[in-house]
Amino acid sequence: MQASISHTEVPWEMEITASCSPAMPPDFDTNMKFKFSILALLLEVIVIVLYGIFVEYDKNFSAMELYPHFQDVHVMIFVGFGFLMTFLKKYGFSSVGFNMLIAAFGLQWGILMQGFWHMKEGKIPINIKSMINADFSTATALISFGALLGKTSPIQMLILTLLEITIFACNEHLVTEVFKATDVGASMTIHAFGAYFGLAAAFVLYRPGLTNKHENDESTYHSDLFAMIGTLFLWLFWPSFNSAIAEGQGAQPRAIINTYYSLAACTIVTFALSSLVDKRGKFSMVLIQNATLAGGVAVGTCADLAIHPFSAMFIGVIAGIVSVLGFQFLTPVMASKLKIQDTCGVHNLHGLPGILGGVAGIIVTAIKRETREGHLLTPSIQTAALGSTLAIAMVGGALTGAILKLPFLGQVSDQNCFDDSAYWEVPEEETVPEIHSSHRDEHSRFEAAM
Amino acid sequence: MQASISHTEVPWEMEITASCSPAMPPDFDTNMKFKFSILALLLEVIVIVLYGIFVEYDKNFSAMELYPHFQDVHVMIFVGFGFLMTFLKKYGFSSVGFNMLIAAFGLQWGILMQGFWHMKEGKIPINIKSMINADFSTATALISFGALLGKTSPIQMLILTLLEITIFACNEHLVTEVFKATDVGASMTIHAFGAYFGLAAAFVLYRPGLTNKHENDESTYHSDLFAMIGTLFLWLFWPSFNSAIAEGQGAQPRAIINTYYSLAACTIVTFALSSLVDKRGKFSMVLIQNATLAGGVAVGTCADLAIHPFSAMFIGVIAGIVSVLGFQFLTPVMASKLKIQDTCGVHNLHGLPGILGGVAGIIVTAIKRETREGHLLTPSIQTAALGSTLAIAMVGGALTGAILKLPFLGQVSDQNCFDDSAYWEVPEEETVPEIHSSHRDEHSRFEAAM
Amino acid sequence: MQASISHTEVPWEMEITASCSPAMPPDFDTNMKFKFSILALLLEVIVIVLYGIFVEYDKNFSAMELYPHFQDVHVMIFVGFGFLMTFLKKYGFSSVGFNMLIAAFGLQWGILMQGFWHMKEGKIPINIKSMINADFSTATALISFGALLGKTSPIQMLILTLLEITIFACNEHLVTEVFKATDVGASMTIHAFGAYFGLAAAFVLYRPGLTNKHENDESTYHSDLFAMIGTLFLWLFWPSFNSAIAEGQGAQPRAIINTYYSLAACTIVTFALSSLVDKRGKFSMVLIQNATLAGGVAVGTCADLAIHPFSAMFIGVIAGIVSVLGFQFLTPVMASKLKIQDTCGVHNLHGLPGILGGVAGIIVTAIKRETREGHLLTPSIQTAALGSTLAIAMVGGALTGAILKLPFLGQVSDQNCFDDSAYWEVPEEETVPEIHSSHRDEHSRFEAAM
Repeated sequence: MQASISHTEVPWEMEITASCSPAMPPDFDTNMKFKFSILALLLEVIVIVLYGIFVEYDKNFSAMELYPHFQDVHVMIFVGFGFLMTFLKKYGFSSVGFNMLIAAFGLQWGILMQGFWHMKEGKIPINIKSMINADFSTATALISFGALLGKTSPIQMLILTLLEITIFACNEHLVTEVFKATDVGASMTIHAFGAYFGLAAAFVLYRPGLTNKHENDESTYHSDLFAMIGTLFLWLFWPSFNSAIAEGQGAQPRAIINTYYSLAACTIVTFALSSLVDKRGKFSMVLIQNATLAGGVAVGTCADLAIHPFSAMFIGVIAGIVSVLGFQFLTPVMASKLKIQDTCGVHNLHGLPGILGGVAGIIVTAIKRETREGHLLTPSIQTAALGSTLAIAMVGGALTGAILKLPFLGQVSDQNCFDDSAYWEVPEEETVPEIHSSHRDEHSRFEAAM
Repeated sequence: MQASISHTEVPWEMEITASCSPAMPPDFDTNMKFKFSILALLLEVIVIVLYGIFVEYDKNFSAMELYPHFQDVHVMIFVGFGFLMTFLKKYGFSSVGFNMLIAAFGLQWGILMQGFWHMKEGKIPINIKSMINADFSTATALISFGALLGKTSPIQMLILTLLEITIFACNEHLVTEVFKATDVGASMTIHAFGAYFGLAAAFVLYRPGLTNKHENDESTYHSDLFAMIGTLFLWLFWPSFNSAIAEGQGAQPRAIINTYYSLAACTIVTFALSSLVDKRGKFSMVLIQNATLAGGVAVGTCADLAIHPFSAMFIGVIAGIVSVLGFQFLTPVMASKLKIQDTCGVHNLHGLPGILGGVAGIIVTAIKRETREGHLLTPSIQTAALGSTLAIAMVGGALTGAILKLPFLGQVSDQNCFDDSAYWEVPEEETVPEIHSSHRDEHSRFEAAM
Repeated sequence: MQASISHTEVPWEMEITASCSPAMPPDFDTNMKFKFSILALLLEVIVIVLYGIFVEYDKNFSAMELYPHFQDVHVMIFVGFGFLMTFLKKYGFSSVGFNMLIAAFGLQWGILMQGFWHMKEGKIPINIKSMINADFSTATALISFGALLGKTSPIQMLILTLLEITIFACNEHLVTEVFKATDVGASMTIHAFGAYFGLAAAFVLYRPGLTNKHENDESTYHSDLFAMIGTLFLWLFWPSFNSAIAEGQGAQPRAIINTYYSLAACTIVTFALSSLVDKRGKFSMVLIQNATLAGGVAVGTCADLAIHPFSAMFIGVIAGIVSVLGFQFLTPVMASKLKIQDTCGVHNLHGLPGILGGVAGIIVTAIKRETREGHLLTPSIQTAALGSTLAIAMVGGALTGAILKLPFLGQVSDQNCFDDSAYWEVPEEETVPEIHSSHRDEHSRFEAAM
């Protein structure tokens, strides 16, 4: 009786621990039983209908030689991105599971959105190359997911994927077909785009309640090892990512070689700086997991150009420096001053290195005369590509974030952020001490009451 | 003294906790020191002798272009199947270890069993394609292992592998050479066959003592993450599995495309239904780990036919529905009413989707005129292939189960099911609380006494 | 006051637990803040300058067909070797992290060291094949790392990598160009070389304080599962390793087939003997993780020769026997009598099977007339190759070990061996009981004081 009276007066954080909390504000109703299912099934039905109308097998099978590249990229999308985000101690199911959900929907949606710009006789032909491009489009949503990790529902992520891939396909068309800029490894159109889209959405979805470090926003020993599975498969197959759609004499081997050496140089620099910025000279797992990959992002735009391996290594070195300094000094400031909460630090892995890649493209086209399919690549074209990408990403991300603020999308409360049990049946751990178990029980009871 | 008197009177479950249990019934002697070693070495010697007599390098090296496909399938067999089964909290060593044992023996045995049907001048030529087929044959034993997981000894599994691959090769010959049916991705000959073979064996090996949920028959947070490694590598490389032996103009890219979209659609539906069937709308790891793969199974039979991507997606949708409903409603009924204990739920991942694949093949050949190497594919041929596969699998599995019931094959007691420590040296965990440690000690003492 | 007096008298092990230990002997100063960073950055600058002067893209792009092989080998180096060493309970970050550091530096350095022996017009051309060879060169340092695991600092490992790859490239030139011996899968030049180099260094770096089993020198349940990720990717892609640089009619498929069957046979034998040598007939994870791979090592030297699959299987059987017996009986003796502490047992996985591979090469060239690019392969040539490899590895390893004994290289004390927290920021574990936590706290305080 007394509990029911005090109900409206206690703050949210206390209410959650009350064993008899009778109702939840609708904004934080994480029960998705019908909402998620209906949305997902509806989207799948729409996709199948659109495939029935528009999609057909490509008659030209020459793209089959790209199949090993495709499989490498495919592993990056599902295993690489998925496990990279498992570093959080209680968010592994969501990281690898929602990553799979986003990617499985995104690769279907991407074919349509990219295909509508390149229809042949009213049809979208699919082959290995267009499947690689669809995997690429999915990467943008997964990068944005990294910024929002732990703070969004699967309903929100499906909507974000739908919108982001649609906007991505427009910007990609603008950059590659209208501007005819070069961006073979997609430093700009995927990495910078995905990062700034996600950061803009994170800005709109700012949670003041997470200003202080959330107790779940940290790793454990084994979650950090799981994340290294993601890091390594991304690192290893990045040369395939940057070279998959390279065309022309020697373009593919150059893209492979440049990416390989950029990553290697970036890795050495990341280890060096990780020790240097730590007060006791120790390595930080978050830097090794992420900043080692920045070299692959930054070399993307000019990966297939004959920039010479030592230039690629130089780009990797700069990327490593930028990424480590970003994680160490910029991310805390962005969270506290700019109200941008970037869970995985995608700004440092994809955002800044993506811009660096765009700038490298501007510099290379300024210094050397490079052509692509007969068109001269100029610094002004590359600058326009970078600028439009950043602008469209930020505006698109902010608008998407505003849509995701709509109530009834299954948002979690601040208290339940970074916790799988909001959306997953989580097994009881036998090695968990009493305090933790009781927390978990309370949690379950609380949600069962919803 | 008193303990020794009470020995014959206490039930088995209590006896195990008595610190001075003096003897074990021979049926549950898990000490394999000589039995397993002699069997394994004997089998290996037999295999080497048979290879010396029958096997030689194929002189035609054109199959080398299949090497990337082969490696993908190889990863599925060892990493995919192996880690998929690590979801049990105390059975990870056995899952990934016995999977490796079964596969390493199976791939040697499969070459012989499949090769005896296709000898050239008394010799079995091996090349990349026949190695892919040998990996395929291994998959049947691994699927059956999934049904029996946690309840059989490595001795039993070696015998099962020997028998199942032998019978599989006969049925495969019947389906593809005699009937000349189509089953490029082996929905029938591998998935349905392996599932119903294993389920029949499980029926014969029924353990009434496991009617109530065994305390070890559950996952932990990290064991579920390890299982996702298996899921993702299976998911990613399934297009290679279904297209590896596809032949003819456009068959391979079609098989890749159809499998890719069937899996993607199946995944969306699995997430949707996983939320829908849960009382609180939460996702279930067991469904995400398994039902997302059903689309790859079900599209197998007609993967290389020009069924159009949207049909492939439709097959994936049905597969997802069937698989989720099977896990949620059928598996409990099968265990309680039909006395079939299916540890991994292979009936829902391989059995039902395999039948669905066979039915899809019947429907497609009824609607469209399809030929294979000049032979017309007809619904009656496809029906015969499906029927013979199911019949041979069930009879073969039941007979094999009867053989595995022979005593002295290293069976575990019900109490020790789903526990690596029956067959493995397991490291002591420092984070294990007292109760658990003492259980483990007792366990070790108990086995040391055997 | 009293603590400060007793400081010089208490043994090291006690000192570490004293909360006010004022100073550390410089030999065990693991704070690498400037030392490591300066060394790593300096090496990277030197490498970039050398690449600027000497390295250029190869104009001949025919090596692109090796790209799938390259990626397989690449996965072995980073995921295979990296995760194989994560078996230690507190050394996962270092295993997979330092493995990445060593490999990222080694693949840059290897191109230069191998390239200097094959310059064309003063330039080192790089293509996929030379990148595979650079990955190979890295493997030697990673094998040696296995012997030294847990006992060396990243500074020491960078120096070892620099020296070992330099010496390796000389020996490789001697074996393949001067002697013109065959060693396609590098049983001798990589596996035996890396193992005996590392063992000689371990002999020089002998730590009497580790004579008794260190409390951290053991696995946990999940660390053993992580290690199986490494084992399986090594096992699966070993055929790519042994066939990557095979040339000539049928050489590549033969190398794939021989390696595949040698591994399969070795695996069966390893399981059989693992049970046989255990007093209770149980399998040992350390044997399954390691000895199953010995077949890949041992078949390396003659992998591409037409030795017949059954001979490959026979080599695999012998390799399995040698490796299991080595782990079981030789490693303990080597540690206690020969003062060689081999953390991962590389002697049993790479050393003995590598010699076995060399001996197999001698026997095969004695029995059959084999030629390579017009040169006759003779037993005397093969013997010279094996002998020179072992001699150069041991002398080189001993000299390198002497250099690594120099103070100020960030060595850990015996007490802190096999513990990530010496070099990494390690997350607090919430499931860790009190005793452990306090140990960790002490640890941190102790190091912060340095």
